[in-house]
Amino acid sequence: MDLPAGTAADPALAADRLATRYGLKSWTRATPAWNETLDVLLGHRSVRRFLPDALSPGILETLVGAAQSAPSSSNLQVWSVVAVEDPERKSRLATLAVDQAFIRQAPLFLVWLIDHQKLRSVARTLGQKTEALDYVESLLLGAVDAALAAQNATVALESLGLGATYVGAIRNRPVQVAAELALPQHVFPLFGMAIGRPDPAAGAGVKPRLPQDAVLFREQYGSGAAQLAAIETYNPRLRAYQRAQGMTEQDWTVQATTRTAGPQSMAGRHRLQDFLQELGFPLL
Amino acid sequence: MDLPAGTAADPALAADRLATRYGLKSWTRATPAWNETLDVLLGHRSVRRFLPDALSPGILETLVGAAQSAPSSSNLQVWSVVAVEDPERKSRLATLAVDQAFIRQAPLFLVWLIDHQKLRSVARTLGQKTEALDYVESLLLGAVDAALAAQNATVALESLGLGATYVGAIRNRPVQVAAELALPQHVFPLFGMAIGRPDPAAGAGVKPRLPQDAVLFREQYGSGAAQLAAIETYNPRLRAYQRAQGMTEQDWTVQATTRTAGPQSMAGRHRLQDFLQELGFPLL
Repeated sequence: MDLPAGTAADPALAADRLATRYGLKSWTRATPAWNETLDVLLGHRSVRRFLPDALSPGILETLVGAAQSAPSSSNLQVWSVVAVEDPERKSRLATLAVDQAFIRQAPLFLVWLIDHQKLRSVARTLGQKTEALDYVESLLLGAVDAALAAQNATVALESLGLGATYVGAIRNRPVQVAAELALPQHVFPLFGMAIGRPDPAAGAGVKPRLPQDAVLFREQYGSGAAQLAAIETYNPRLRAYQRAQGMTEQDWTVQATTRTAGPQSMAGRHRLQDFLQELGFPLL
Repeated sequence: MDLPAGTAADPALAADRLATRYGLKSWTRATPAWNETLDVLLGHRSVRRFLPDALSPGILETLVGAAQSAPSSSNLQVWSVVAVEDPERKSRLATLAVDQAFIRQAPLFLVWLIDHQKLRSVARTLGQKTEALDYVESLLLGAVDAALAAQNATVALESLGLGATYVGAIRNRPVQVAAELALPQHVFPLFGMAIGRPDPAAGAGVKPRLPQDAVLFREQYGSGAAQLAAIETYNPRLRAYQRAQGMTEQDWTVQATTRTAGPQSMAGRHRLQDFLQELGFPLL
């Protein structure tokens, strides 16, 4: 499935990788000189079956180094991360996140946090106020910064042959997750990430995405009709992928709108505003 | 400043890159086999001075391909991006974002959007409701997905020798930005990104970050005292960087807490909740 090192500069590979990402037979637009990094990025797949091997020493610190290398708004660095390796704790966290078995199986589970406690402590020592942290803007800024960092860690670990899956389901019961990790007030568990060496027997595929015409606009947002037409072409491409992976076939349009139908489809997350209040985010 | 290709596997380079990222003389922990991708990630710097060269054909589509390769929660793909190259429009957007000159200078300005309109249109054609999109959770999910995508684009462009800077300041006046880009209701401009070829004369440096002890915890969140002690060691390292870059020296603790003091330090973003309401995000 992985190409041998040294082939990354092959110009045909660029078009190949892009075609695969969109479930197309070929990619007809121009492509830049290909490189290993683009190959890692385009080759991403979610990994939900892991070998039991522990990660090598120094890997976690390198992933965090990559994460901290991501841009940070005004250099505020309002995130932290808890690395969970204890099987019991991992199992309890899995239970809180819809009982997903791959969380137990992964040797490492990272919980990425929006951390407003850090700046509040610093400000206290300086006799400074931190009222800006109470606003919706600061929650959003923290979510963006934490996500940029986590994605850098993801790219880093994939470049090392490891695999991962994000776990948004820790937001189903964030107050319990916070208790499990002994989080102080003003710290919110944004998402988890299960990390390990991919089980080669599982053969996770590259999932095709919406065509670019449904996502990329020039100068101004385009017409709704053109976007809907682009989305229509996606349903059969996603179905072909589902078929190849032995999954139940379902149109994306049905899948996605079922997920966003209403509170009943949110696995508890419609209460997030309450959970955030409880954890010390007043959302002014 | 950039190392010649082919040196990325050098084991000394790994320790070097990590030390630089933390403003340390040396890195004493274990490092993994280094590779080009880790080198791109750890070598990140914000670029705010660009050469006037337009980007090559196909680059934008490749960046969007990298962005769409990022994980997406439940494959909902709730983001879009507007690529702005028109100098007049770029200039008006710069004016809305604290008049930052590098936005005008960059040949490409991307505006990354949380896009709930797409799923709403699809649902309308299917006679399906989309009430889940009205909740805080869906704003947060959109922010995370858009950020993961944007960071993949950033890594991709840096691997190609380009540079970028995120522009959170478009959230100072998001309603005006939405009007400029003809965004429909239920679409929120989350951040901008100025992209171009770095001006080699500018010599942007690698900014040191907080030590890992202030960011990374094992099993549970650590004690506040240990974290504060770790943060104290950061002030002189950031000052050394500021000095080397010819910038005004200021402790991070002072900088960061000044920025989060209160509404008056938020450049208008304390009103984000109102702006979101106006753009069709009720935040239940």
